[in-house]
Amino acid sequence: MGKELIVNRLQKLREVMKEQSVDVYLITSTDFHGSEYVSDCFKFTEYLSGCTSDNVVLIVETKHASDEENVCLARLWTDGRYFISAKKELDGTGIELMRMGEPGVPKAEEYLQSCLKEGMCLAYDARCIRAQRGSIYRQIAAKAGAAVRGEFDPVREVWPERPDYPKKPVWIMDETLAGESVKSKIERVKTRMGQRGTEALILNKPDEIMWLLNLRGSDIAYNPVALSYLVLNGEEVILYLMKEQTTDVVLQYANENGFVIRDYEDFFEDLAKTEWAGHVMIDPLSVSDAIMGTLAGTGIMPVAALSPVMSLKAVKNETELKNIREIYLEDSAAVCRFLCRLEQMTKDGFFTGDGTGQSPVCELDLARMLDDERSTIEGYLSPSFETISAFGENAAIVHYEPKEETQARVLEGNFLLLDSGGQYTRGTTDITRTVFIGKRDDETFAKMKEHFTYVAVANLRLLTAEFRYGCTGANLDSIPREVLWEHGLDYNHGTGHGIGYCLNVHEGPQNISWRITRDSVGANTVFEPGMITSDEPGIYLEGEYGIRTESVVECVKVKKEEDSAGFLKMQPLTYVPIDLRMIDPSRMDASDRKRLNDYHEAVYEKISPLLKKDEEIQWLFEATRPI
Amino acid sequence: MGKELIVNRLQKLREVMKEQSVDVYLITSTDFHGSEYVSDCFKFTEYLSGCTSDNVVLIVETKHASDEENVCLARLWTDGRYFISAKKELDGTGIELMRMGEPGVPKAEEYLQSCLKEGMCLAYDARCIRAQRGSIYRQIAAKAGAAVRGEFDPVREVWPERPDYPKKPVWIMDETLAGESVKSKIERVKTRMGQRGTEALILNKPDEIMWLLNLRGSDIAYNPVALSYLVLNGEEVILYLMKEQTTDVVLQYANENGFVIRDYEDFFEDLAKTEWAGHVMIDPLSVSDAIMGTLAGTGIMPVAALSPVMSLKAVKNETELKNIREIYLEDSAAVCRFLCRLEQMTKDGFFTGDGTGQSPVCELDLARMLDDERSTIEGYLSPSFETISAFGENAAIVHYEPKEETQARVLEGNFLLLDSGGQYTRGTTDITRTVFIGKRDDETFAKMKEHFTYVAVANLRLLTAEFRYGCTGANLDSIPREVLWEHGLDYNHGTGHGIGYCLNVHEGPQNISWRITRDSVGANTVFEPGMITSDEPGIYLEGEYGIRTESVVECVKVKKEEDSAGFLKMQPLTYVPIDLRMIDPSRMDASDRKRLNDYHEAVYEKISPLLKKDEEIQWLFEATRPI
Repeated sequence: MGKELIVNRLQKLREVMKEQSVDVYLITSTDFHGSEYVSDCFKFTEYLSGCTSDNVVLIVETKHASDEENVCLARLWTDGRYFISAKKELDGTGIELMRMGEPGVPKAEEYLQSCLKEGMCLAYDARCIRAQRGSIYRQIAAKAGAAVRGEFDPVREVWPERPDYPKKPVWIMDETLAGESVKSKIERVKTRMGQRGTEALILNKPDEIMWLLNLRGSDIAYNPVALSYLVLNGEEVILYLMKEQTTDVVLQYANENGFVIRDYEDFFEDLAKTEWAGHVMIDPLSVSDAIMGTLAGTGIMPVAALSPVMSLKAVKNETELKNIREIYLEDSAAVCRFLCRLEQMTKDGFFTGDGTGQSPVCELDLARMLDDERSTIEGYLSPSFETISAFGENAAIVHYEPKEETQARVLEGNFLLLDSGGQYTRGTTDITRTVFIGKRDDETFAKMKEHFTYVAVANLRLLTAEFRYGCTGANLDSIPREVLWEHGLDYNHGTGHGIGYCLNVHEGPQNISWRITRDSVGANTVFEPGMITSDEPGIYLEGEYGIRTESVVECVKVKKEEDSAGFLKMQPLTYVPIDLRMIDPSRMDASDRKRLNDYHEAVYEKISPLLKKDEEIQWLFEATRPI
Repeated sequence: MGKELIVNRLQKLREVMKEQSVDVYLITSTDFHGSEYVSDCFKFTEYLSGCTSDNVVLIVETKHASDEENVCLARLWTDGRYFISAKKELDGTGIELMRMGEPGVPKAEEYLQSCLKEGMCLAYDARCIRAQRGSIYRQIAAKAGAAVRGEFDPVREVWPERPDYPKKPVWIMDETLAGESVKSKIERVKTRMGQRGTEALILNKPDEIMWLLNLRGSDIAYNPVALSYLVLNGEEVILYLMKEQTTDVVLQYANENGFVIRDYEDFFEDLAKTEWAGHVMIDPLSVSDAIMGTLAGTGIMPVAALSPVMSLKAVKNETELKNIREIYLEDSAAVCRFLCRLEQMTKDGFFTGDGTGQSPVCELDLARMLDDERSTIEGYLSPSFETISAFGENAAIVHYEPKEETQARVLEGNFLLLDSGGQYTRGTTDITRTVFIGKRDDETFAKMKEHFTYVAVANLRLLTAEFRYGCTGANLDSIPREVLWEHGLDYNHGTGHGIGYCLNVHEGPQNISWRITRDSVGANTVFEPGMITSDEPGIYLEGEYGIRTESVVECVKVKKEEDSAGFLKMQPLTYVPIDLRMIDPSRMDASDRKRLNDYHEAVYEKISPLLKKDEEIQWLFEATRPI
């Protein structure tokens, strides 16, 4: 992208800011709903800066009387995943890159503290800021004696070519797939609301709204949801949806299921005019600063609480579980077919890199090959996130996403890490397998095998872990992690996250992590039977290689002869072999070898009937042999 | 004790209550300092009820106009450890036993809710109630429209023969033993106070005061502390101590170390008269309701915070650590000598019970034998708690304490569980070993070995566990516990507690437990190098047997070639064999067998030089043989 374009856009923005007496403008790369992926129409920070990172805070200032010439008036914060790309993208734009978490680099809110002066005006679009963060910004401004304008939205003036809202079709998830009627879900939510002394609830997370109303959409990449708001009060349930999405079928469905639909664009106006008084349940980690601000002008008292929909949604019902178990088998079979093909390609010399005449294979080629295998499965919608196909040192970058221009060629002698998943009408999958390409015979190879073995052992220990009811992710995390800790190794991410049902691949409330952050309920959430969680330990050596083994587990009650109602355990949903060529049995205890053999026996038993070709079955037989 | 005596005492109490217009009187079995053990002069609930339990809430009511005759007017709450003894003790006294935690039994505060009516007066001695609990009682009374009198103390009238306060000699712990000067400790506490924006601090836990001033006492059984209060404000440090304890030596020491001493009896009066205004740091889990109530009448603003002394005290200094490591070796040697003698007694037929002519050996005989072994160690003061010597099914009762009249005879064919410790000038010890007495050969024996092996493995896994800095006891607990969980087993207590340095055998803030209770910081405390914690998993089969293996560990930094500042590990302090006759190696992984062999090798290496008799060294050699 031409750098002058960026300079011009920022110039135009500053003119609008000056016209409207805004001194400091803060823009984030999020949408109105805090979605993990955002539609193109929300990529305003990318338009303004050229930076493609999906975690951006951009602060633009107008030149102030006391400032000198040539002073930097735009700063962009992003995290370590994007330092390299952002540096290139921002070069020549006059925007300073602020590396989040680097020593000496102030946080965006710290910078605000230093740049806001008395009488200034801080502006942002409060719809794009979560309530908790908004209250921090407002406190900073108040302390500085600066004004705050939360409704500033210069997009119209600055971004004439902005894409339209997605407004993609909404579809109804039949109760035979959803397993529970909308009415029943609403009743259960109301019970939870009553327990907290509230009569109303506002939802602005699309996945929660979709789950509650048994609807799905495709407004957002990878997440089968429609951008929407929902208000549940004593009298009615109101879904705010784009007019174009409100078809006759959807309208009739709403009628039949006891909710009404109003225009998405009217949400804030309606909220401001609300005449019901009472207590409304609000999740401050989820709702926007704009919602909180609008409520402040009404007679409604917000009661901060974890969203009851999040908690209910996390515990899958019997129909969901049946479908999830099924789709994970089919998804596992697709990954097995891919792995079989990958091995054949290796044998055929695709990765030798010695000019055997084969075209070079790059990371994205393999990502597409894997996506293709999934696409043949019944009810397939899309990948559940951007497939990570990372070779060699790229695999050490935890959130690496291969790009057309920068991707690596896959060659013999290192690990290929594949983290991928599918969205299906019968569930959402997520799996990582790391396989070694070709051969190698040096000291590093021995270390690679050692590390691969530890990761496998960690994964297997959690895969069937048993524990008492009441345990949280903070309790469970050391079961896999101690395997690495005792060798002075670790991974800088959580061990597991919750997974939706034909919904977001990352969902709360539960997660598995030893670090408990203050504003997160995740690792403090008690595990319940029916929760679906990932199990993904790893080892990452910067500049060398990365290993991650991820399977997804279902939390179930332990049924034993004696009454053991107090015990739960994990049960695998994912059945794909762990690369035995990289397992060093001498680094494993007998019980860990048994765990691996038991798992592989189950893989063969469950997946071989789903494979059609002899060579695939033969491959699986070999890949699941006992050690 | 004659039951009429109890009836008469309660009658007398009710007269005093009526005279002073008290309708409901709540008495606890605690002292003014929330001590784990209380002096005889504080055993008012025992005097009034005959109940010897150390966890009692007694509620006595005067007959009310609307009540019928013969209605029960005294209720005593105690926990499961004392149900059987309390039932006997209360029989015929007219006091109803309220079994804590049993279904259908209201909690004391729930009962208060039901019995307090408008216009009534609830009374208690607010010095014996922790601030947090006091505020609950006050809320209940306020809701009912009842008055609260926190200074009600009918002891003088009702208990003429009350023993005097202990007032035992106070001694100075030399800096060569304490490792840090009083001035330095006070400075560090002041820094913590400043960080919380407070200028003053009130302490009422004797162990915290003793640690801060490098003093020790013996007012309380097993805890080498003097009953005391301490006030630290901007100007001075005031120790409140009984006049009889304030000898010239102590006074001179106070002078030299920058603190003043005032009469213990004047504490509340002084506090009420306080003229300094400002913010005082208060730990609501530790200070009494009386302190909070007295502060309310002054210009002092309480700031609730974890006691800074507790946190500083938990991290032992180099001198303390050196002494602790040493004393644990000597203490371990004493336990080894005892175990050697026990084995000889077994060989000599002391436990055959078949009339070989030996006198019967009971639990208390063995407890005394073990205590005697310790008493020869230099600097020995007393046991660190009442030695638990529990045979057979008694060992399944977690807090069992043998009593002269009810103790079991020790016979072949079951486990003997010994949980004991010593107070020394060089530290406080705590150890549990479970040994099998004699022989047995049935199905139960195989199960006993299996269970004993799991407990040993759980203990060993934590004994040398490595983990990242930042881990809490809630993170670490599943490392040992998963060993049991995976077999559907568990123990209903924490895995570990902090241990003082010539102070209380149970101290905070850290502990190791997967259950996080709301009002406890314990399992949420981050482990620091220098913390001393117990490692005591167990298995208890009601009516059959109990097993517990407890060693004490020091938390240390891991020093490796690479920079691994982020890693900590546990290191054993206790070196006593684990009964190999009860280990089933087939139930252990190779790495667990290695852990056991490594531990036993270290036990032999460290303890054999401390043993004098050939038969003891021979016994240790045999008891630590590799498996």
